Amino acid sequence: MLPSWLVLDPLLQSWLLEDIGRGDRTTQGLLGERSQMSKAVWIAKQPGVIAGLEVAARIFQLIDPRVTAAVSESDGYACQPSEIIVRFHGPLAALLTGERVALNLVMRLSGIATLTRKYAEQLSGASAQLVDTRKTTPGLRVLEKYATWVGGGLNHRMGLDDAVMIKDNHIAAAGGIEQAVAQIRANMPYPLSIEVETETLEQVKVALAQKVDIIMLDNMPLDKMKQAVALIRQHSDRTKIEASGNITLETIREVAETGVDYISTSAPITQASWLDISMRLDLE
Amino acid sequence: MLPSWLVLDPLLQSWLLEDIGRGDRTTQGLLGERSQMSKAVWIAKQPGVIAGLEVAARIFQLIDPRVTAAVSESDGYACQPSEIIVRFHGPLAALLTGERVALNLVMRLSGIATLTRKYAEQLSGASAQLVDTRKTTPGLRVLEKYATWVGGGLNHRMGLDDAVMIKDNHIAAAGGIEQAVAQIRANMPYPLSIEVETETLEQVKVALAQKVDIIMLDNMPLDKMKQAVALIRQHSDRTKIEASGNITLETIREVAETGVDYISTSAPITQASWLDISMRLDLE
Amino acid sequence: MLPSWLVLDPLLQSWLLEDIGRGDRTTQGLLGERSQMSKAVWIAKQPGVIAGLEVAARIFQLIDPRVTAAVSESDGYACQPSEIIVRFHGPLAALLTGERVALNLVMRLSGIATLTRKYAEQLSGASAQLVDTRKTTPGLRVLEKYATWVGGGLNHRMGLDDAVMIKDNHIAAAGGIEQAVAQIRANMPYPLSIEVETETLEQVKVALAQKVDIIMLDNMPLDKMKQAVALIRQHSDRTKIEASGNITLETIREVAETGVDYISTSAPITQASWLDISMRLDLE
Amino acid sequence: MLPSWLVLDPLLQSWLLEDIGRGDRTTQGLLGERSQMSKAVWIAKQPGVIAGLEVAARIFQLIDPRVTAAVSESDGYACQPSEIIVRFHGPLAALLTGERVALNLVMRLSGIATLTRKYAEQLSGASAQLVDTRKTTPGLRVLEKYATWVGGGLNHRMGLDDAVMIKDNHIAAAGGIEQAVAQIRANMPYPLSIEVETETLEQVKVALAQKVDIIMLDNMPLDKMKQAVALIRQHSDRTKIEASGNITLETIREVAETGVDYISTSAPITQASWLDISMRLDLE
Amino acid sequence: MLPSWLVLDPLLQSWLLEDIGRGDRTTQGLLGERSQMSKAVWIAKQPGVIAGLEVAARIFQLIDPRVTAAVSESDGYACQPSEIIVRFHGPLAALLTGERVALNLVMRLSGIATLTRKYAEQLSGASAQLVDTRKTTPGLRVLEKYATWVGGGLNHRMGLDDAVMIKDNHIAAAGGIEQAVAQIRANMPYPLSIEVETETLEQVKVALAQKVDIIMLDNMPLDKMKQAVALIRQHSDRTKIEASGNITLETIREVAETGVDYISTSAPITQASWLDISMRLDLE
Amino acid sequence: MLPSWLVLDPLLQSWLLEDIGRGDRTTQGLLGERSQMSKAVWIAKQPGVIAGLEVAARIFQLIDPRVTAAVSESDGYACQPSEIIVRFHGPLAALLTGERVALNLVMRLSGIATLTRKYAEQLSGASAQLVDTRKTTPGLRVLEKYATWVGGGLNHRMGLDDAVMIKDNHIAAAGGIEQAVAQIRANMPYPLSIEVETETLEQVKVALAQKVDIIMLDNMPLDKMKQAVALIRQHSDRTKIEASGNITLETIREVAETGVDYISTSAPITQASWLDISMRLDLE
Repeated sequence: MLPSWLVLDPLLQSWLLEDIGRGDRTTQGLLGERSQMSKAVWIAKQPGVIAGLEVAARIFQLIDPRVTAAVSESDGYACQPSEIIVRFHGPLAALLTGERVALNLVMRLSGIATLTRKYAEQLSGASAQLVDTRKTTPGLRVLEKYATWVGGGLNHRMGLDDAVMIKDNHIAAAGGIEQAVAQIRANMPYPLSIEVETETLEQVKVALAQKVDIIMLDNMPLDKMKQAVALIRQHSDRTKIEASGNITLETIREVAETGVDYISTSAPITQASWLDISMRLDLE
Repeated sequence: MLPSWLVLDPLLQSWLLEDIGRGDRTTQGLLGERSQMSKAVWIAKQPGVIAGLEVAARIFQLIDPRVTAAVSESDGYACQPSEIIVRFHGPLAALLTGERVALNLVMRLSGIATLTRKYAEQLSGASAQLVDTRKTTPGLRVLEKYATWVGGGLNHRMGLDDAVMIKDNHIAAAGGIEQAVAQIRANMPYPLSIEVETETLEQVKVALAQKVDIIMLDNMPLDKMKQAVALIRQHSDRTKIEASGNITLETIREVAETGVDYISTSAPITQASWLDISMRLDLE
Repeated sequence: MLPSWLVLDPLLQSWLLEDIGRGDRTTQGLLGERSQMSKAVWIAKQPGVIAGLEVAARIFQLIDPRVTAAVSESDGYACQPSEIIVRFHGPLAALLTGERVALNLVMRLSGIATLTRKYAEQLSGASAQLVDTRKTTPGLRVLEKYATWVGGGLNHRMGLDDAVMIKDNHIAAAGGIEQAVAQIRANMPYPLSIEVETETLEQVKVALAQKVDIIMLDNMPLDKMKQAVALIRQHSDRTKIEASGNITLETIREVAETGVDYISTSAPITQASWLDISMRLDLE
Repeated sequence: MLPSWLVLDPLLQSWLLEDIGRGDRTTQGLLGERSQMSKAVWIAKQPGVIAGLEVAARIFQLIDPRVTAAVSESDGYACQPSEIIVRFHGPLAALLTGERVALNLVMRLSGIATLTRKYAEQLSGASAQLVDTRKTTPGLRVLEKYATWVGGGLNHRMGLDDAVMIKDNHIAAAGGIEQAVAQIRANMPYPLSIEVETETLEQVKVALAQKVDIIMLDNMPLDKMKQAVALIRQHSDRTKIEASGNITLETIREVAETGVDYISTSAPITQASWLDISMRLDLE
Repeated sequence: MLPSWLVLDPLLQSWLLEDIGRGDRTTQGLLGERSQMSKAVWIAKQPGVIAGLEVAARIFQLIDPRVTAAVSESDGYACQPSEIIVRFHGPLAALLTGERVALNLVMRLSGIATLTRKYAEQLSGASAQLVDTRKTTPGLRVLEKYATWVGGGLNHRMGLDDAVMIKDNHIAAAGGIEQAVAQIRANMPYPLSIEVETETLEQVKVALAQKVDIIMLDNMPLDKMKQAVALIRQHSDRTKIEASGNITLETIREVAETGVDYISTSAPITQASWLDISMRLDLE
Repeated sequence: MLPSWLVLDPLLQSWLLEDIGRGDRTTQGLLGERSQMSKAVWIAKQPGVIAGLEVAARIFQLIDPRVTAAVSESDGYACQPSEIIVRFHGPLAALLTGERVALNLVMRLSGIATLTRKYAEQLSGASAQLVDTRKTTPGLRVLEKYATWVGGGLNHRMGLDDAVMIKDNHIAAAGGIEQAVAQIRANMPYPLSIEVETETLEQVKVALAQKVDIIMLDNMPLDKMKQAVALIRQHSDRTKIEASGNITLETIREVAETGVDYISTSAPITQASWLDISMRLDLE
């Protein structure tokens, strides 16, 4: 879900300033003070899942608060080519100056939502849920993870501070899973969840004994994964089980059928192309 | 080329803070004050063109200035799978905390450089040059355009203020190309170049008459493009000619052969997947 | 634990600027360019628990990187009146200009650590652990919670985004605990813990049925609290149980003996006086 | 008095972001887009002096400008337990998300105003006035000093740049009071007041001879303080006299009776507990 | 032309905060909460060209959005002494607090516009146009260049990134004009113009051969300048020719008559005095 | 005196970024990674008083910390044409990129110091001192006032918060000088000085009776000014007397001879031209 504008506005402003620099020479040079009201529509050029329209409207409004947006379908809508997905109304200068930043963002987010939905659809009817990773474009974490959610996935942790993830290097540095869990637990805010990456059944057992909240099965073959799920469920119906590693559109369904709760993959974010959308202005 | 750290550091810091939030619970909880020195290597998992290693080193150094990087090959190097592309040395905590942000950036930039080079190679031996567009991820304009350059392209304008681009909507708002050019010229900093988007030979003639610096041939069929090039070259050997619209790996060579100077496409940025790279730590 | 200086430096700088304004008229007017090296010691005027010395050193270093600190005992040390707790060496101007900000911070943090330890000592030998709340001075969340940890407590969530806490108003808005948990779970990052505030055994049962991670027993009488603990332990050895409401130095031990895991109270932060510490300069 | 929102808004925003982080998981997860209007009241749980209600309203409005506040009594009002001190109306999500930050601030400021009034009441009818010091929580200087004023005190200097305060270390560094005053006067903005800390009658005489604006009698016994006041008044009816050091609720009246003009103490800020206030929501 | 408020607001806010600091002690101390509406007029004390009135209005509105401005004549108007140039209406406190910052800016900008017009008038009827340089007050680049435009000049480049200017040191570092142009062209965004500083006809020829966009004739005697213009026009009617160096009100006309297109001088910015303007309040 | 770099660095960085934008196309395009060390000297082109060399060095060091400066004479030195005033050594790219910003600042500040010294010299041997006003270029307050001090003046208040200045409008709003002084005194930090603008002897008497710290004689004829001085000195030898209004190089001496303590004028800041200085590079 989108966080408060308090969180997003500084990002949106910095993105507008990145493009505008010292001023939009073309639009300013042409229109100067005149602020003729105009209409604009955004048209999908490809089929896909739309994400970020509310943010696009906000971008235009940060340039000129008189811009309004009429969104026919909300985020998550599956658009068809040539379809109008939003109508804007406002001063021509604001529409021209904000066009590229607003479109860049929505094309990127919709690209992610579109690919996420393809993965999520493979899990249709299964109990496992698709989740993302921390592989996100620097500066876009909150919005790219919003696009995951729009596309039908859940988010994994948002950063290094809202959950603990103990990986092989941490285990090596601590001298073992037990030591790592104990040390971190003594120092961290107590409500945080602890997740441990495991590669062997032996490691799964140790993690279970430490009562960690989430056990990640990392790059395990399907049969070993099934064994791990059985082992965990024997001891606890509350431990969350996450599968990770080499998840593709082809393999994700089989992985789900091992009984894991969550399947994490960066692909919907790192492999997504932008969804093609264009703006058409209607000078009144 | 990379701009001064004065320009980049605020971005890099904001990206680190985006991930770190209130603190890296896992690494801090585990290592606390201890700052054991460690080695880390980055290993390419796919063939591709590397971009951003200097920036990656800077990211780690913003966490802890003791981190050093030994880059075997500089940006633009064509890596092979399993190849080590950079070696870091520094406090373990800094390497663990900065890993994801540094990798995310280099994986994204290298993905762009890799796809850019594919396009650029199609132009090998031709006089036309590949250029990018303003379709870049919000907040990454300078670095994504750096990746274009690393991959073998040139940059188009960096924002709305370093060149004038007169598109159909501007022409409509002004009442014609003549009027648009005249109005903008009277207001803009005089060294800026003026580019006009044209769709017909008639528009090309008007733009020529206005002595604009760059004429863009937008979405023209190849034969019309050739006619436009001939028309322009008849009058001026200094006007730059840019082709744009529906450029693909398949079509770019034919477009180049029409005699245009520049071919602009957003594809190497909007269609690029991240190049897969991973970090391996060597605890001493 | 203290997070990276990347997180803290902007705070420390803003605090120095708050005091310095357009310049330290007294010190600048007196010393100008001269940067005579001096020694300074900090002397405790009361018994207490010291917290924040590393941050104090950093504050001076942000004014002048030549300042060094020799901390005899690290944070958590129980100081006696008249005891020297840290020795600084550096340019006189930096020591004079930074004195107040550095002392203000350490006096506040040490006041919290001192009162926290009083509460924590009541739990000596018990299995329950003391935890703080989100009642912290605006702008000092990370450091005041660090002082809690120095004093012997654990931290509760750091903000609204690293754990879910469902209170009576949320329950009322959702129409019940089940609905609230279900809606939030569908939208939140999956590793987050969910805590539910309960006031009745009935609510405890519903929360248990939703498999929430933490059940808070809010303002319950001791016998009801014992019943709640028994009820929860019957179903799950993993659900964390937190007692909250009207915890005092007098009552905290009895609350611990009900078998809860965590006891949260804002008192060590909202009721703490500053620990008195003064700086003595030794002009060389 | 409260400065312009231009000065305060950046603080308030940073405090909201400190708590909200990447988003209020509970409220967002529950309410999403829905913005049901609700009422909320703040109820005092202890007797005390209220300070900061206007700022609390601004905090909510920075989240959502539709929030309105009806303050029955303005800052400085002496509340009774169970009394409603302000009524808010606005979107439920804004009220839930902003509650903790707004309450934290007002509870802290009201705690200061409450204790300040206790000190100020001791001076009732006396000519001496209570003033604060630079011992304030980092980042809260302006607002904590506002609470002093609400509670009935006056402010001492706001920072290092709006008055000169020459302390023993400055005197030692300069080689005497005369030298210190002369050097600083030659460099400082001429309207600034100069205050000198004195511990002996000899120092008082020297300070008088330098025509400093304020003479501070630091930690003097009452009879010596009386002598100092007499000495100063003999020469000048314009020099301001400030008593400082070990001021308590018990001693402050006697100090006032020595004839000093101002009595400075950090106690109302460094010894204050938060005033307990809670918010009750009324879902419509 | 003025850029978007998105670009200017952060500057205006920082300038208000520079003056207000921790609060306007006089106005706040006097008026507190009372916000009596008042009228104010600005009166020119000297003849000159007004620039910046819209920005002045914005400055007051950033303090209090209720301030309105009635500008009788827009920027570029030639005012007479005692003439009212703008009328403001709004809360008295906002008018008093914002007066100095708003006046300081408009007095500075109008001083520049006034001197610029004197230079521009010397070019009346000539084909050469007056342009400014990068000699602008740090932090005021965009607004001082706006004042140039108001006064009748055009802007040269706005910064180091919107055009290339190859000076003697660059030529020396590269080993010649050819090398410098070639290297920079291979790295820069392709639409940027390249300008080369020349001091000899030989250099002019080399620059022409490199097809640079602008040739600057630096400090050339008038007859050599004429030769250079003739030489350039022989080869190209598109190359822009700029004269620079020791331009005064006395010499500028002769320079224009050599046939150059642009004459650049920093004098209207570096030699301008502030135009005297004062504010008169009318308390209602 | 220059305040801490903590205060100045954010300004210097913003000024560099204002000029550099997205990168110095010329220098970067030419030199790229190469960082050849070079020497540069700054040469005065006019006689004048130098101010700001330390800040210039800092500007270069913010681009590249390897730049060093050898200042032969410190700020306040009276330079002659063709004289070398400072030598820099460092990477060529840093010297080229920082040149304009550093020179712009020093040329502006030296222009102020030069004109200030002309005014100050008129007061040679007199007891009155030259002081500046709040008429300073937005964003440069601290540094322009530093230049006043370098040139031989003292500073008046630095902003609206370090002294109280009661002008005619405040008096009118309050209903008289007494009321204005009383209201402000009840609200302001007690060490602040209060200055009252007076135009008549009657007003001077009222101000005296209120024991204000500074009485400004605004635009009084010389004989009335003498009467006012006599009147004030009769009652108090501590009240500071400031003359203001229409001070010129011709009149300032006569004003001083009326016996006032301070003479304030904005002319050295608002009427100053930039001192011409240029940089010469010596490529090694």
